[in-house]
Amino acid sequence: MPHARNLKIGVVGATGMVGAELLRCLEDRRFPVSELLAFSSGAAKKAVRFQGRSVPAPAVDLKALASCDLVFFVSADEVSEEFAPRLAAAGVWVIDDSAAFRLTASVPLVIPEVNAGALSRNSRLIAGPNCTMTGLAVAGSLLHERFKCVAARVASYQAVSGAGRAALEEFFSQSRHHARQHKLEDGRAPIMSLPAHRVLPAPISGNVIPQVGGFDALGNTSEENKVAAELKKIWDAPKLSASVTAVRVPVSRGHSLAAWLEFARPVSVAQARAALKKTPGLVFSENGSYPTPLSAGGKHPVYAGRLRQGAHARELCLWIVSDNLLKGAALNSVQIAEELLRRGWLKRA
Amino acid sequence: MPHARNLKIGVVGATGMVGAELLRCLEDRRFPVSELLAFSSGAAKKAVRFQGRSVPAPAVDLKALASCDLVFFVSADEVSEEFAPRLAAAGVWVIDDSAAFRLTASVPLVIPEVNAGALSRNSRLIAGPNCTMTGLAVAGSLLHERFKCVAARVASYQAVSGAGRAALEEFFSQSRHHARQHKLEDGRAPIMSLPAHRVLPAPISGNVIPQVGGFDALGNTSEENKVAAELKKIWDAPKLSASVTAVRVPVSRGHSLAAWLEFARPVSVAQARAALKKTPGLVFSENGSYPTPLSAGGKHPVYAGRLRQGAHARELCLWIVSDNLLKGAALNSVQIAEELLRRGWLKRA
Repeated sequence: MPHARNLKIGVVGATGMVGAELLRCLEDRRFPVSELLAFSSGAAKKAVRFQGRSVPAPAVDLKALASCDLVFFVSADEVSEEFAPRLAAAGVWVIDDSAAFRLTASVPLVIPEVNAGALSRNSRLIAGPNCTMTGLAVAGSLLHERFKCVAARVASYQAVSGAGRAALEEFFSQSRHHARQHKLEDGRAPIMSLPAHRVLPAPISGNVIPQVGGFDALGNTSEENKVAAELKKIWDAPKLSASVTAVRVPVSRGHSLAAWLEFARPVSVAQARAALKKTPGLVFSENGSYPTPLSAGGKHPVYAGRLRQGAHARELCLWIVSDNLLKGAALNSVQIAEELLRRGWLKRA
Repeated sequence: MPHARNLKIGVVGATGMVGAELLRCLEDRRFPVSELLAFSSGAAKKAVRFQGRSVPAPAVDLKALASCDLVFFVSADEVSEEFAPRLAAAGVWVIDDSAAFRLTASVPLVIPEVNAGALSRNSRLIAGPNCTMTGLAVAGSLLHERFKCVAARVASYQAVSGAGRAALEEFFSQSRHHARQHKLEDGRAPIMSLPAHRVLPAPISGNVIPQVGGFDALGNTSEENKVAAELKKIWDAPKLSASVTAVRVPVSRGHSLAAWLEFARPVSVAQARAALKKTPGLVFSENGSYPTPLSAGGKHPVYAGRLRQGAHARELCLWIVSDNLLKGAALNSVQIAEELLRRGWLKRA
């Protein structure tokens, strides 16, 4: 890492699931942390482990955060809204994984492999994208650059961890409930009961739920709208038409996408394969093998496979998988920080 | 049931999972069975229960089958290939749920609510469709009639029971294995291990698998090709462009589909809603609620919801769920038989 220097780093939401991954990424990637200030935004446990030590994680303290070189927000939108702009205005670099500022015109929304060029020394507040669109934005980036994507239809298969710790615990509890019904009687496939649910909008064990977030007046969910709007911003494709169906599936980690990408220019499967093999951040599987959430869980790259022609000659089908807590959240935030380091921008004001 | 008469019925594949559902459907719908001849096509158990009695299910016996008024095939393609045409030629009505004859031009491929008109007194061999395309063919039938569907993009979420009993048992066994890993350590979402698999092409518990069937040279699976080809035949839409990504999900019963349907004629969401409410065999959910596999498992209708405009003004998004073993297989076969009864065609030759 060129220009590495020891930095004072703040993490807001350190006790959450993405927070846990973020601390692990900072350790594993040897990000030069001289001091870590961890903050809890909710009623979670009040300490985290970092570099073998227990670090207290009290409630957010703006003054302490203002002493940092860089602060990561991996917490709720409202927490970022309250604190992130003030810190940035005070000269602190802020990498915000919430949805609060992603669509704000003056805030760069960045996946380093895709649009590091959007970073600017004048924008100390930087947003990381929605976990569901990240895989698509990475996998399709070079295709879009070469052939210009004009429409995207995307069906998602989203892991429960994307809905947070309480949702994951609900999934595990329902799984134990269903395990008792896991037998064939008179040779029939069991009709599973509907276990209780409180966190997700329907039971998730043994089920799929076509709702991630709340509904708007047109019947789209907030997740579907995020994917569409953020893809346009990251690809700088304001006229792209993106239609998304976001579905939760009983998977612990790893969001998968079945995507149809329609291009302005003709694109053969062979041309697409060549582009996918050169796409930064992407591991491409030739037909015959393919990634799954279980194979991609805990890994850093975006994976894609099942490349085929779509509904016509200017359209491609692609299957994309990435770890929603890593490339979809924590890892991408750390990669943005690494890019700032690389540019020599991360020093005390 | 008009013109009901007591009939001698054969079931080939009676000991399989679809066979179990078929016998249940015949009972529950009071199909007029005077005598049941059950046959096992594999090494499964050798008796089934029907109307409270144990009925032996020996290996297939063509001579015995030829004495039936109607024979259901709910077994492998090869079994249908060997016996079904001979029985039909001998004057026995044959309803074949396998893929063997679905695309044969002289064989009607029938979902009664959609294309009962394809039935003919001269075609004693009748095919039932693939379980994955059935929900789509039913849900979109009136939309297609009114607005002419020209392209369909479909991502599936397919239950494990669609792959048979051994696959379902493999899923249940893997679930028990994964249940032991269902805990958060240091606040991290667990990265689940890859349990052993033998029946399905990858582990299915805690996973999704974008492969149903084998691959062709273009990279499409047999399941994807079936959905596309059978949809064109059932809707009598040879020029329809259908692009499918078929994905197995850890669900016991109930196939779900995220579909984008593109029409030749403009269609508003309001017009589509009106058509969906009148579509035979379909239960339509207004936005805000939606079907899931757990809510649709064990039920007879096709369910649809999440109606929205798609990627442009002539395209609609729809979420469709149906029980793959019932409407996708056993129930549809019995409904075809009921239609033959209704027409008075089911009598001894």
